[in-house]
Amino acid sequence: MSDHVYKIVELVGSSPDSLESAIDNALKKASETIRHMRWFEVIETRGHIEDGQVAHYQVKLKVGFTLDD
Amino acid sequence: MSDHVYKIVELVGSSPDSLESAIDNALKKASETIRHMRWFEVIETRGHIEDGQVAHYQVKLKVGFTLDD
Amino acid sequence: MSDHVYKIVELVGSSPDSLESAIDNALKKASETIRHMRWFEVIETRGHIEDGQVAHYQVKLKVGFTLDD
Amino acid sequence: MSDHVYKIVELVGSSPDSLESAIDNALKKASETIRHMRWFEVIETRGHIEDGQVAHYQVKLKVGFTLDD
Amino acid sequence: MSDHVYKIVELVGSSPDSLESAIDNALKKASETIRHMRWFEVIETRGHIEDGQVAHYQVKLKVGFTLDD
Amino acid sequence: MSDHVYKIVELVGSSPDSLESAIDNALKKASETIRHMRWFEVIETRGHIEDGQVAHYQVKLKVGFTLDD
Amino acid sequence: MSDHVYKIVELVGSSPDSLESAIDNALKKASETIRHMRWFEVIETRGHIEDGQVAHYQVKLKVGFTLDD
Amino acid sequence: MSDHVYKIVELVGSSPDSLESAIDNALKKASETIRHMRWFEVIETRGHIEDGQVAHYQVKLKVGFTLDD
Amino acid sequence: MSDHVYKIVELVGSSPDSLESAIDNALKKASETIRHMRWFEVIETRGHIEDGQVAHYQVKLKVGFTLDD
Amino acid sequence: MSDHVYKIVELVGSSPDSLESAIDNALKKASETIRHMRWFEVIETRGHIEDGQVAHYQVKLKVGFTLDD
Amino acid sequence: MSDHVYKIVELVGSSPDSLESAIDNALKKASETIRHMRWFEVIETRGHIEDGQVAHYQVKLKVGFTLDD
Amino acid sequence: MSDHVYKIVELVGSSPDSLESAIDNALKKASETIRHMRWFEVIETRGHIEDGQVAHYQVKLKVGFTLDD
Repeated sequence: MSDHVYKIVELVGSSPDSLESAIDNALKKASETIRHMRWFEVIETRGHIEDGQVAHYQVKLKVGFTLDD
Repeated sequence: MSDHVYKIVELVGSSPDSLESAIDNALKKASETIRHMRWFEVIETRGHIEDGQVAHYQVKLKVGFTLDD
Repeated sequence: MSDHVYKIVELVGSSPDSLESAIDNALKKASETIRHMRWFEVIETRGHIEDGQVAHYQVKLKVGFTLDD
Repeated sequence: MSDHVYKIVELVGSSPDSLESAIDNALKKASETIRHMRWFEVIETRGHIEDGQVAHYQVKLKVGFTLDD
Repeated sequence: MSDHVYKIVELVGSSPDSLESAIDNALKKASETIRHMRWFEVIETRGHIEDGQVAHYQVKLKVGFTLDD
Repeated sequence: MSDHVYKIVELVGSSPDSLESAIDNALKKASETIRHMRWFEVIETRGHIEDGQVAHYQVKLKVGFTLDD
Repeated sequence: MSDHVYKIVELVGSSPDSLESAIDNALKKASETIRHMRWFEVIETRGHIEDGQVAHYQVKLKVGFTLDD
Repeated sequence: MSDHVYKIVELVGSSPDSLESAIDNALKKASETIRHMRWFEVIETRGHIEDGQVAHYQVKLKVGFTLDD
Repeated sequence: MSDHVYKIVELVGSSPDSLESAIDNALKKASETIRHMRWFEVIETRGHIEDGQVAHYQVKLKVGFTLDD
Repeated sequence: MSDHVYKIVELVGSSPDSLESAIDNALKKASETIRHMRWFEVIETRGHIEDGQVAHYQVKLKVGFTLDD
Repeated sequence: MSDHVYKIVELVGSSPDSLESAIDNALKKASETIRHMRWFEVIETRGHIEDGQVAHYQVKLKVGFTLDD
Repeated sequence: MSDHVYKIVELVGSSPDSLESAIDNALKKASETIRHMRWFEVIETRGHIEDGQVAHYQVKLKVGFTLDD
């Protein structure tokens, strides 16, 4: 188990609702093509503003997944 | 459209409820004097503690807005 | 009052629910042994993924408390 | 002369042509309202892509100017 | 529109001519296999020296593109 | 009290005497136009040299002040 | 030769033996699917502890490879 | 002597007088409970402002001390 | 299991032999007083030089351990 | 060839014309006393402003050269 | 004047008295061999502790000087 | 002893064998021209890859030495 190799991809997810759902949306999309995702790390939190209010949150993630079978 | 110039201001908003409402509070106050805000970036997340619990969250933001008419 | 000395500890809290409750869980545990906690700062936001979804959020905090009596 | 005080503003300029003209465009706009600008520092270089090519460069600057009369 | 998910790849482009053409060369190569590229960020600027002169500039980019259809 | 909004400005103060008086000079000048300054953070310490000696210290500050009435 | 384009991937390798063999394990796995790897950069060194001892080292790498034929 | 192990604690000291006395106050308080302190590193310099003047300086320190007997 | 709270301590270990044994020495000493250590992260690698050669390596670590029973 | 040792110097070059010629000017001056320069890395991009326009660009470089014969 | 080239050296000065005199001591020593020093930047502030008190402050500086005649 | 002044040079050493011998090779070469080297700090760890394996490790060091007699 100590010899796992992970690959890390960088994603941006967004949501009009919350930081958590922006993370969820990124993972949901990524899980269509990546199996065995194990962890994520938030590296940037941004958002767009319309009419003086948050239109949607944007969260940049690093996501690690195993390359092993 | 490619020749927009943006100015960036740095704000701290706070809220006893959530990170999202701390962001909202900063933008609501800023929108009283700044028009055309376009995006924000969270650069620091802190908070105050009272009696072992979060009294309020503090989120430091950079907010970009257009200088164009 | 200007001569307070603070000590800072570093903690990781986690929660399946939200970033805010991950912070809460860290502070609740810390308050069992640390009195006079005054502020926190989020220095890392991560999480674990199971079946393509967030299993739990992990928030790394610095927490400051007074050493004064 | 050693007691100057400078204020620093953060700007984003853009141009379809070059990094240098993105800097120029930010300074030209800023000079409409700020006198006595003395130096700038590039803190971020980005750009937008359309049809696989750079549509415009975006350069984020800190610009220092004197507050003295 | 607020639910886009972006993926980010990291590239190094080079050119003997200018920083801008080093960026162009990276994007031109990437566009052979990546559709829907939207933005880039320069994260490192380097170069090789021969006979005391710049032989070519090397620019490391993060490039974001949409995963949506 | 938990819903304060702060704005942050960036200043450079200088003094031939000490780091502390460079901070003082920046705050004294800023207080002519900014009321309700609450805290500062030193983000850069530099200086100019003449004849092998410090001619003046330069301290770059972020200064936070309340936007509330 | 000055017009090479490199792509960079991020990997985590691990080994119970040494930092060097953690690097080796990451590269060995990556070489199954990536040809023309040219350089790596260590961006994080971590490890897991069991019974007060290092169970395995984990080294996060950026690996650059040519996209040219 | 080459096998010393150090532990590092993080402290904030403050003083109305100078950066140096803010450091001193942190060390004086820490020395009540920590023996064998060997070095410190300043990682943040801040302060509070009252009536447009520095009320007190705050210096965040890492302090290393030996765990050996 | 998702509600673990970790505490993180910062240590410096050293060894005349290798980076790995500097890590080992820090963990061995720490395990005398800390139970349930789970992971470490290397945050600085330094060393002392005598007669033009490495006298000993110094590795600064963050070590995480569970506060749960 | 794998046993090269490089030394790195830090330089600031400037030019009224472009970022590239600021790099060139630094290398041209350095090549008067340093042989075998191999690569450079841009670590800071600044400039001076006169009358609201760029008077000259300043680029801070790290330059690596071989110490081998 | 816009075509100056600067070289930057890194120094550590120390003093038992103050941060300012640690800077002075570094510059005084450097001025024995370097002419035309123009500016410095403090990049690290540390110190040694003896008997629970500051034995001496250590300030790491970058110092820029002109290479021109 | 508290008035030592150190100068710091930046070096890259390499070795096909290990990180430690890459450090050794840099110091061995530097000791031909620099006396009184006291400490080093690893600021970057990289390497070259040939045929999917590490060809040699490259370690970038800062090395401090006394300027005093």
